[in-house]
Amino acid sequence: MCDDTQLRLLGLGDGPLPKTRPVYRHIAQAIERGITTGALALDFRLPAERDLAGALKVSRTTIVSAYRDLETRGLVRGYVGRGTFVSAAPEASGAPFAWRGKVAAAASRSSDGAIRDLLRHAADPSVVSVAAGSPALEGFPVDAYRRSMDRAIKRDVRLAFGHGPTEGLPVLREAIAHRFGGQPHNVLVLAGAQQGLDLLARCLVDPGDTVVVDRPGYLGALHTFNAAGARLVGWDVMRHDLDELEDLITRYRPKLIYTNPTFQNPTGWTMPLKLRRQLLSLASRLRVPIIEDDTYRELFLNTPPPPSLHSMDTQSVVIHLNTFSKALAPGLRLGWLSAAPPIIEQLALLKQRSDPHMPNLNQMIVAEMIVDGTFDRNLADLRTEHRRRRDAMIGALERHGAAGKLQWTVPDGGLYLWCRLSGRLKASQVQTHALAESVAFVRGEAFYVDQAGERELRICYSSVPANRADDVANRIMRAVNGAKRDLATPSQLVAIV
Amino acid sequence: MCDDTQLRLLGLGDGPLPKTRPVYRHIAQAIERGITTGALALDFRLPAERDLAGALKVSRTTIVSAYRDLETRGLVRGYVGRGTFVSAAPEASGAPFAWRGKVAAAASRSSDGAIRDLLRHAADPSVVSVAAGSPALEGFPVDAYRRSMDRAIKRDVRLAFGHGPTEGLPVLREAIAHRFGGQPHNVLVLAGAQQGLDLLARCLVDPGDTVVVDRPGYLGALHTFNAAGARLVGWDVMRHDLDELEDLITRYRPKLIYTNPTFQNPTGWTMPLKLRRQLLSLASRLRVPIIEDDTYRELFLNTPPPPSLHSMDTQSVVIHLNTFSKALAPGLRLGWLSAAPPIIEQLALLKQRSDPHMPNLNQMIVAEMIVDGTFDRNLADLRTEHRRRRDAMIGALERHGAAGKLQWTVPDGGLYLWCRLSGRLKASQVQTHALAESVAFVRGEAFYVDQAGERELRICYSSVPANRADDVANRIMRAVNGAKRDLATPSQLVAIV
Repeated sequence: MCDDTQLRLLGLGDGPLPKTRPVYRHIAQAIERGITTGALALDFRLPAERDLAGALKVSRTTIVSAYRDLETRGLVRGYVGRGTFVSAAPEASGAPFAWRGKVAAAASRSSDGAIRDLLRHAADPSVVSVAAGSPALEGFPVDAYRRSMDRAIKRDVRLAFGHGPTEGLPVLREAIAHRFGGQPHNVLVLAGAQQGLDLLARCLVDPGDTVVVDRPGYLGALHTFNAAGARLVGWDVMRHDLDELEDLITRYRPKLIYTNPTFQNPTGWTMPLKLRRQLLSLASRLRVPIIEDDTYRELFLNTPPPPSLHSMDTQSVVIHLNTFSKALAPGLRLGWLSAAPPIIEQLALLKQRSDPHMPNLNQMIVAEMIVDGTFDRNLADLRTEHRRRRDAMIGALERHGAAGKLQWTVPDGGLYLWCRLSGRLKASQVQTHALAESVAFVRGEAFYVDQAGERELRICYSSVPANRADDVANRIMRAVNGAKRDLATPSQLVAIV
Repeated sequence: MCDDTQLRLLGLGDGPLPKTRPVYRHIAQAIERGITTGALALDFRLPAERDLAGALKVSRTTIVSAYRDLETRGLVRGYVGRGTFVSAAPEASGAPFAWRGKVAAAASRSSDGAIRDLLRHAADPSVVSVAAGSPALEGFPVDAYRRSMDRAIKRDVRLAFGHGPTEGLPVLREAIAHRFGGQPHNVLVLAGAQQGLDLLARCLVDPGDTVVVDRPGYLGALHTFNAAGARLVGWDVMRHDLDELEDLITRYRPKLIYTNPTFQNPTGWTMPLKLRRQLLSLASRLRVPIIEDDTYRELFLNTPPPPSLHSMDTQSVVIHLNTFSKALAPGLRLGWLSAAPPIIEQLALLKQRSDPHMPNLNQMIVAEMIVDGTFDRNLADLRTEHRRRRDAMIGALERHGAAGKLQWTVPDGGLYLWCRLSGRLKASQVQTHALAESVAFVRGEAFYVDQAGERELRICYSSVPANRADDVANRIMRAVNGAKRDLATPSQLVAIV
């Protein structure tokens, strides 16, 4: 339906159409004027082509041409089955190109900047960040890194700075298989676990597919599957109820299960051996692939965790994701994935589209550091240092009055302290004060697919040297106390003050 | 329609359905048996649910359950509006998980392994490759690289090995803006130009959108836009007819134009200044954004090329892509993109999904090499060396009898010799012989969207040291001569011999 009121709104209600220029141009210009003046707001839905054609007594082709003209200029966008919507105002002179209207439908699902903001804070010297997950870097084996680099360059400068295979350099694939299990041809070298998630989402998830994820679970995974158009269903990791999972699978027929069963991000929880066996058997029986994110396995603080799902899997049902970001350094941007050959093949084809191969020199250096034992010596140092940092952070939080305000379970691996606020306090309220204290953490909501987690927050203890824990804990507790005071104060009063 | 013949083919034609187990399981198992034995081949279309339900006299829900069961196990896949197809055979025991059937519809568009194969050859010591594009690497400024690295680590080890912002480290964005023009906030640091193409395709191209590309044009770009579901239309770069382009735009309403106007890959052609002005004005008038791939700009062999489209653009209609892969080293995996801020913002959100940031240390090193002049000194050396290699390759091809068999235009920039075979000879026929000679080039077809180019081939001269040009040219001409002899020989004879 398109009545006179609507025609007037479109700027097309005043008299007959002109005969001197193409009618479609006249219509397009009238609508453009409406967009420019703001009469037609962003997301305003234009009349259906058929209806507008009827109301103006022109052919439908004329309206199609007018809408196309507007679409070409980025001012409107048509969506099959939904209609045509105003997508951008013409920009002010000097930047006349309405770029926003050109953005593809799938890309606009990527509007969550959580990871980017994490990284921005992590690199901002004016903010004390316990948001991004980073191991201790102060003891990074710089000399070994430099020696490995020199050897690599001396061995083959053309290889070091030249092209390499998409799957990864053989020397690194072999070192990974030897150190972490599996065969070199099952290994795909990546720019980090996040790239693996993105490739897997692109490879396996069609829009509308269901994916079962940890609840709470790694925010980057939730974000990536979301952006792929998946419907996310959370499996409660702390309750670890296998019947619940079987129900979820039967009910939603998920395309895959994403889980981080070892020193889980964010909770620090580790799945017991028996449950690992049961989960594997359930997934094999119901034929649902598992993506096992094993990022934190090596970062135990007391005893090594149970074996990975991947190492127990006899049915090739598990894809294993790992990274050097936490067990060595995030700045290296190297990770890997182990899977059955048909999946490695398909993922390599997808990877070459965006990122044909990882830097060869970086791969050669890391391979060398694994083979010559630097990687494992550094890991042992990291475990000691992380234990010290965990205890320092917990001690400092307690000294600054966390009791009765902030609770946690002491983690025995991973990089995080997963905290729960007492009473009615929300992490978002604490965050407002934290920004004033120049300290950044991650709010619990980011880890849930269902708007839960508002009283939880994640602190990365491993990135804070022990001698700085006191300052960080002090800022955090000042933020908690500030938020508590707001709660106690009637909000009108706050507004006046 | 589903008749008796089809029921028999499905293994469901022999008598009444059993009463002892769920009917849907019986149906699923019958179809699975058919898939296992090969009676139902890959891509076989199962009857519509409604039809099979009617033929078997069961409810449609039963068929839906049976098909879902098969789909969950990766054996069939349903596509809305098209039907349900056999997607994989159950794998042999030991690898029981039918992964192939799990691959998403969009991912299967990525089946072109051309780039991956290029890279594989480039890193394979048993093959002499003039396929992948690489600058001379033998003179890479290793000492300056090491010195820059030491300075970066000494300055800030936590930054060097830690997290960084998605858009790139400020120090590199500033160095790029200063050296190549523009402002730091218009720069997005990438893993190479290919990542920029992928991000742009994901950001701007909806399946079904048209993209105008150079004809012939960079194969990675064709591949990426193809994989994004675009319809590709070629604009003939050698004819450079602006009326033709205007026709293409009016006819196909493309979402964008991709062009590589300076020492074009593969032809070496450079767009004259006047045509650049006309192209810009056309694109602004018709509101079609241009992606300008400026990868080879710095690699002129005689005189500098005309200014980039991007530097002449007053309407923000051009997105500029560039990389350090050709002007420094491909193994660094660093490139960048310059665009209007709304596009940088959207691309950074997309990038964080797969590749949250580039390695900080590598960024710090390259920034340092730009600022201290190493980059430009190395470029001057590269130009001299590439001139020498171009002349050596051309001389060697001529000595080995290229006249009358292989023609080219001498390039005055870029890395490639774009060759045309004489007579009826096809590059695919030459390639067969080239593999026996252990030499790899790229066939012309890879650069065309329309199956043309079968008599053309691309040789990267810059990766071959002058003293090895003779050997490479000898192998190439032996392959050409071998293919010519085949042509002269009736094919029956070849089969007998």
